[in-house]
Amino acid sequence: MQALVESARRRDSALVVGLDPVPTRLPPGLLEGREEHEAVLEFCRGILEAVSPYAAAVKVQLAYFERLGPEGMRAYAGLVREAGAAGLPVIADAKRGDIAETAAAYAEAHLRVYGAHCVTVNPYMGADAVLPFLEEARRLGRGGGVFVLVATSNPSAGAFQEASEPPASELAARLVAELGDMQNCGYPDAGAVVGVTRPEAGRRARRLLPRALFLAPGFGAQGGGVQGVRALLDGSGGGVLVSSSRAILYACGGRGDYRDAAAGAAREARDLLRAAGVRV
Amino acid sequence: MQALVESARRRDSALVVGLDPVPTRLPPGLLEGREEHEAVLEFCRGILEAVSPYAAAVKVQLAYFERLGPEGMRAYAGLVREAGAAGLPVIADAKRGDIAETAAAYAEAHLRVYGAHCVTVNPYMGADAVLPFLEEARRLGRGGGVFVLVATSNPSAGAFQEASEPPASELAARLVAELGDMQNCGYPDAGAVVGVTRPEAGRRARRLLPRALFLAPGFGAQGGGVQGVRALLDGSGGGVLVSSSRAILYACGGRGDYRDAAAGAAREARDLLRAAGVRV
Repeated sequence: MQALVESARRRDSALVVGLDPVPTRLPPGLLEGREEHEAVLEFCRGILEAVSPYAAAVKVQLAYFERLGPEGMRAYAGLVREAGAAGLPVIADAKRGDIAETAAAYAEAHLRVYGAHCVTVNPYMGADAVLPFLEEARRLGRGGGVFVLVATSNPSAGAFQEASEPPASELAARLVAELGDMQNCGYPDAGAVVGVTRPEAGRRARRLLPRALFLAPGFGAQGGGVQGVRALLDGSGGGVLVSSSRAILYACGGRGDYRDAAAGAAREARDLLRAAGVRV
Repeated sequence: MQALVESARRRDSALVVGLDPVPTRLPPGLLEGREEHEAVLEFCRGILEAVSPYAAAVKVQLAYFERLGPEGMRAYAGLVREAGAAGLPVIADAKRGDIAETAAAYAEAHLRVYGAHCVTVNPYMGADAVLPFLEEARRLGRGGGVFVLVATSNPSAGAFQEASEPPASELAARLVAELGDMQNCGYPDAGAVVGVTRPEAGRRARRLLPRALFLAPGFGAQGGGVQGVRALLDGSGGGVLVSSSRAILYACGGRGDYRDAAAGAAREARDLLRAAGVRV
């Protein structure tokens, strides 16, 4: 987590920009004379440049790269390199969830081969699915870590994550508490994904994880606002990185330069979070 | 599921061979003069040829391809093509778990771009994470479907999947029951991953899903035997495909031809399952 936290503090920004390059929403000009994977990389390159003054990190949504076949994964590799050159740590939003040696292979893929700093991980298979990622991050010593899905922001999340006693989201939060090791930055290397659209679940996750770093999606396009973020803050008013994807990526709405619009939207989101006192 | 079930019936085999090409366990000769991804593809090609008379399908463990970077994904694409040429349907053991448009991108990746028939899916984010895979499989009309993780075979599974009331595994099973559509083969297009190492959880999953097809890992190397498989059978003594990976892939134990050893181990596993009356 160290890498993320230092970047956030350096830029005084709690904003993570999510890179979800949905091909049908790319500026049409970008697709002319380019293969889809080239257009996606070019689009993301423009976004990186536009948001790098305002964002603490970028979160790469793997599905949109996987969908483009092997060349899509080459674009993912290129994107991680370019984010590094822009001084932006990368969260691989891969939500992988497998066990033991297999989880170790996924960890090696994203943290070592592709070079992301952090990975999102699914807790359904228990500690076996989470620990190998932490072990790989610790071996690499680049200040990385994992964000375990705890309380996600999608409509059907509650029907699974809150339908039992204790709720699955609580079991996930306990895994985060058990497995994380404290870093110099003041946060453990295991954090939690906690959406801003379900403040009640968020408050419970915070009670269970008073010191963990939260990655909070759902800000902006998914309808979550500053109020939802406040529910997630820790005792000292920090501990949250807020991720926004589509509200920034597609801010231009098909008019004007997508980079200018993205830069404006990112600055606005950062300022909104700053004004609300959200920080790490 | 149609494609899997037809293949299993044609070959009178309930065996699925899992392709988990761990590079350190490849026959050393294969790595000479080859890049790692080439050696992995060559190894899997040999296994495909060796097991195709005895296996109903192959299950590709994505982590070992993802770990090899973009070229690893090219090997995955090649492997799916060659399995098709050998008449073996492919289950992409990807355990992806994301939502809505993002889940649709993963579904498109594995079912359309890479061409697998079925995908394993993680239920932690609820119906939003499962339905887009089913929708893609139905659009493609190739007799594919999904296997949702319900009760997995790893050591820490129970501590997450059975620690609540109702247990998370029961919520997952309910998703399978709700979302599947019955196919001509007599099984719905949503099946369940239920390990053979936890018969109690397996029996409960079967009570909740009397008609679903189960994909049962943990047979062989993970310590699960025929007794564990019996707990999963449906009312008519069918409904289970049993997956075995390392006990077949690495049957040679470093001595002799790995293909001969794999063919022998696959035949033996198929015969063991046949003798126990396990079928679909």
